[in-house]
Amino acid sequence: MSPESGTGTMLYEISRIIQGGAAVCRHASTAAAARVEHEHLFPAALQPRDYAVPNPTWNPETKRLYEELSRDPSWRRLPSYEEFAGSRSSMSLEADGETRFFTRNLDQEGIGFEYCMFYNEAEKRTVFIFQPGPYLGGLAGYTHGGCIATIVDSTVGAGIVNGIGPAMTANLNLDYRSPIPLGSTVLIDSRVEKVDGQKVYTRCQVRSHDSAVLHSEATALYVMLKSGESEARL
Amino acid sequence: MSPESGTGTMLYEISRIIQGGAAVCRHASTAAAARVEHEHLFPAALQPRDYAVPNPTWNPETKRLYEELSRDPSWRRLPSYEEFAGSRSSMSLEADGETRFFTRNLDQEGIGFEYCMFYNEAEKRTVFIFQPGPYLGGLAGYTHGGCIATIVDSTVGAGIVNGIGPAMTANLNLDYRSPIPLGSTVLIDSRVEKVDGQKVYTRCQVRSHDSAVLHSEATALYVMLKSGESEARL
Repeated sequence: MSPESGTGTMLYEISRIIQGGAAVCRHASTAAAARVEHEHLFPAALQPRDYAVPNPTWNPETKRLYEELSRDPSWRRLPSYEEFAGSRSSMSLEADGETRFFTRNLDQEGIGFEYCMFYNEAEKRTVFIFQPGPYLGGLAGYTHGGCIATIVDSTVGAGIVNGIGPAMTANLNLDYRSPIPLGSTVLIDSRVEKVDGQKVYTRCQVRSHDSAVLHSEATALYVMLKSGESEARL
Repeated sequence: MSPESGTGTMLYEISRIIQGGAAVCRHASTAAAARVEHEHLFPAALQPRDYAVPNPTWNPETKRLYEELSRDPSWRRLPSYEEFAGSRSSMSLEADGETRFFTRNLDQEGIGFEYCMFYNEAEKRTVFIFQPGPYLGGLAGYTHGGCIATIVDSTVGAGIVNGIGPAMTANLNLDYRSPIPLGSTVLIDSRVEKVDGQKVYTRCQVRSHDSAVLHSEATALYVMLKSGESEARL
């Protein structure tokens, strides 16, 4: 457990909120089920937009991967919203005004994170189709290394929350092999390797859409948050 | 060296572009020098805006840290732009239209990455004052873990580029200890631990503005890019 004052209480609050949010994802296995779930959580006039569907800025490789995974019944598409369910009730009182989920914070399509995630229950595997827009630039005009860390964390986290339960990142270890051109399409593939008590060990690769280039490799350790737990262990 | 086809050529191009960009930072040790440098690189009508200065959305802690470091002659402020110098000539041909630097991609002040970096030449140390805005949300409304990876990568990278020379991230290893509330102020402190040939080993901490809370710890390995090198080694 972290020795920092107040961390236990904060993590309890996070556990409570994540469990609310995870319910949105876990039961939304079809478009119809997702709609029922949202109608339960959000008033009809405030139905959130699901961003994890094709838009005109998607390039042919992004669309092809989306269609292939959509056709395969072993994969289930995960919806994605501008705001994480439950975040309005978060403890981040310093935040002023409307909050947005980091990877959905740009209004214009195609300039930021364009992506869709799919989950394979039998294999405990999550893939993330990612098309980095021109506003995600890093050194020399390639995709910023922080974006790659962000999509790896998102892929691994979605897989664990959907397959096992609410959890938080404890460690993220990334090897950068080859830079990712802005506007290209990459596929992030994450698998759970081992569950040991509250610890979940995962492994992840970021490859070009045709698998020819290995852009990054990563391991991530997540810690499960128990329901009603007053102090989560890190 | 990475076995991927074309990686050597890409890294040579990146090295060439970074060296152009690094020149902007390395010689811009005062506001006047920075102005001269920009006038050399950019036509007068296209002088880029330097974002690393206080704006009305900065909270009292962010301003206090900025003022303290500005007064101390051992620290030098690093300017920050919307676009990385040289990115227009990058190889990311897939990117369509205008590119933006990832951490400066939101037009409205205060909603995204608000930050300023300072560099201490004698100590080979870089600090990053960071105020995450409400559009950088992650689980439960706290700052997204990917943002923390992004600022760590930015801090370490800026220190190496300014103190040693152009380099690329090869490994980033982050331990997440305590979540960061949106709207709060944190300080990222990065030091070079060892230089071994082309490899630069660094260590970094992310703490609350008053140092009381350790939010994250990280190590990062960077690989220096030699001038004119046709193949960089990872």
